[in-house]
Amino acid sequence: MDLNLPVYADIEAAAQRIEGAAIRTPLLENPRVNDRLGGRLLIKAEPLQRTGSFKFRGAYNFISQLGAAQRQPGVVAWSSGNHAQGVAEAARALRTPATIVMPHDAPAIKVANTRASGARVVFYDRLKDDREAIARALADREGRTPVPPYDHPWIIAGQGTIGSEVIDQAGALGATLDAVIAPCSGGGLSTGIAMAVKAISPQTQCFAAEPAGFDDLARSLASGTIQRNERLTGSFCDALLAPCPGNYTFPLAKRHLAGSLVATDEEVAAAMELAFREFKLVVEPGGAVGLACVLKERLPVKDRTVCVICSGGNVDGEMFRAALATAARPQSG
Amino acid sequence: MDLNLPVYADIEAAAQRIEGAAIRTPLLENPRVNDRLGGRLLIKAEPLQRTGSFKFRGAYNFISQLGAAQRQPGVVAWSSGNHAQGVAEAARALRTPATIVMPHDAPAIKVANTRASGARVVFYDRLKDDREAIARALADREGRTPVPPYDHPWIIAGQGTIGSEVIDQAGALGATLDAVIAPCSGGGLSTGIAMAVKAISPQTQCFAAEPAGFDDLARSLASGTIQRNERLTGSFCDALLAPCPGNYTFPLAKRHLAGSLVATDEEVAAAMELAFREFKLVVEPGGAVGLACVLKERLPVKDRTVCVICSGGNVDGEMFRAALATAARPQSG
Repeated sequence: MDLNLPVYADIEAAAQRIEGAAIRTPLLENPRVNDRLGGRLLIKAEPLQRTGSFKFRGAYNFISQLGAAQRQPGVVAWSSGNHAQGVAEAARALRTPATIVMPHDAPAIKVANTRASGARVVFYDRLKDDREAIARALADREGRTPVPPYDHPWIIAGQGTIGSEVIDQAGALGATLDAVIAPCSGGGLSTGIAMAVKAISPQTQCFAAEPAGFDDLARSLASGTIQRNERLTGSFCDALLAPCPGNYTFPLAKRHLAGSLVATDEEVAAAMELAFREFKLVVEPGGAVGLACVLKERLPVKDRTVCVICSGGNVDGEMFRAALATAARPQSG
Repeated sequence: MDLNLPVYADIEAAAQRIEGAAIRTPLLENPRVNDRLGGRLLIKAEPLQRTGSFKFRGAYNFISQLGAAQRQPGVVAWSSGNHAQGVAEAARALRTPATIVMPHDAPAIKVANTRASGARVVFYDRLKDDREAIARALADREGRTPVPPYDHPWIIAGQGTIGSEVIDQAGALGATLDAVIAPCSGGGLSTGIAMAVKAISPQTQCFAAEPAGFDDLARSLASGTIQRNERLTGSFCDALLAPCPGNYTFPLAKRHLAGSLVATDEEVAAAMELAFREFKLVVEPGGAVGLACVLKERLPVKDRTVCVICSGGNVDGEMFRAALATAARPQSG
């Protein structure tokens, strides 16, 4: 392969493009949680990002680089939800028409929010259809530019802006990060962040976090070649169901990530409950998988400073209530 | 009465004292909510404050002004919960022993958190005992300084730091505030904020918000004299059960507040659900009463810019789940 992988300068340029449009989300800390873990845990609160997840960053960085001739017919994206909302809202902010191809079983809140941003929604069947093929056909027919969910240098650079922000915000708190962990679906977020963090703070270890049973990146890193998930449905973490690492994200993952850690659905529910109780933050299942890994000490915090990216908060009330109830059962710890 | 009412300079001094100890909580905004309301709604996210509510500000401003001779025997406070946690954590930060007198029916999370900050907890019966008398007896016996929950210039000035922050943060967003609304129990928060806002931005209207049936301030403002609530239990808003406006807060309320608005428990649950869904923020019932007033258009946002203080997020999982479930029922809108 002969790909032009993004570099740190692309993240710096992305940070300038998104400034004022995206929110510089806060880095949260809780002394009681720190006491319990015996170290320092910093939470990057991307649920407070515009559209409720980090996806706005990459989408805005992408669409803002299109010329007038590309913006006029508009963009098309395929997404289980958060990328859809990010593209729809970035397109609205940049006065560009958007069509979003979404799975028919996407959470209702994500469909409603995508439409509320003015985008057209086209549904597909997760089990039968190829969402990328549908989106690309639409793109050909209508002259729309596809906005890929993760495997593109502009998307990776946009998500990577979180990496430079957390290093900067941790510094303002007098903290030096020993490790950073971010949820991983296709890897745009975790590799973008790792690229930024490694450029600024080479001694900081960077990890991805995946749901148990959907650990394509962990297996790809172990084998050295791209591995696919066996299933594309059935995880509590509906935002983390990409089939495999991408052609851009996998080489970046090999270069910059120290590994990919895994958490079960029950552990993710417990992490959502902790974020609710101690950080007053609504985190969706896919957004809490890094926090779950930390709480289970797969990434130890003791005597260290660890930054966890909580990447989104777009969860239905019913699912959130179920997560709190699951976590409240004594047997689930 | 011949009281030395606090002035804006006290709030400026408090802001310097709490800097670095308290968190400058973010001001949140959501384009979709703005579209729906036809104006601009800014949410001051005090659930993200240290201890999960604004109370840390006043407590820290108070205890930091005690001399070594007063700090050594320590402080005592009486509280339904958030003030307790604020005093306990501020005392810990300032290496001062704290005893907290709490109602026996305070939410479990608030009791646990107060203890986790290293404070001793003494319980009283909301219906039979006089909590202030118990605390003052403890103060006399052990030489402790009482930290009153609201009716003290140092407390009011500490809470008032939110007022100067929101004017400053709104300015950074290019917004000029037409109105500010803050939850009210004894009035330390709402009058402190109003004092700061009026000093910096005299044209901004300031309102308090109270739970229906516990509208002592609204009735006091209407009658011109201090009125008491008939009951001290029975509201969903467990943080807003002070018996009446204070000797300091009432004159400040008369001077600086445009009025006090009221919301029902069901309206508060709907506001909690909106904060969850659109702002990804956990808000406790008492913290959401201002937002409830805005959503019911008792304080209109249309063609205006309104700042709502969401004052705390210390709510048990069970109560939060109940609030989301209540708000999801079609008949509650």
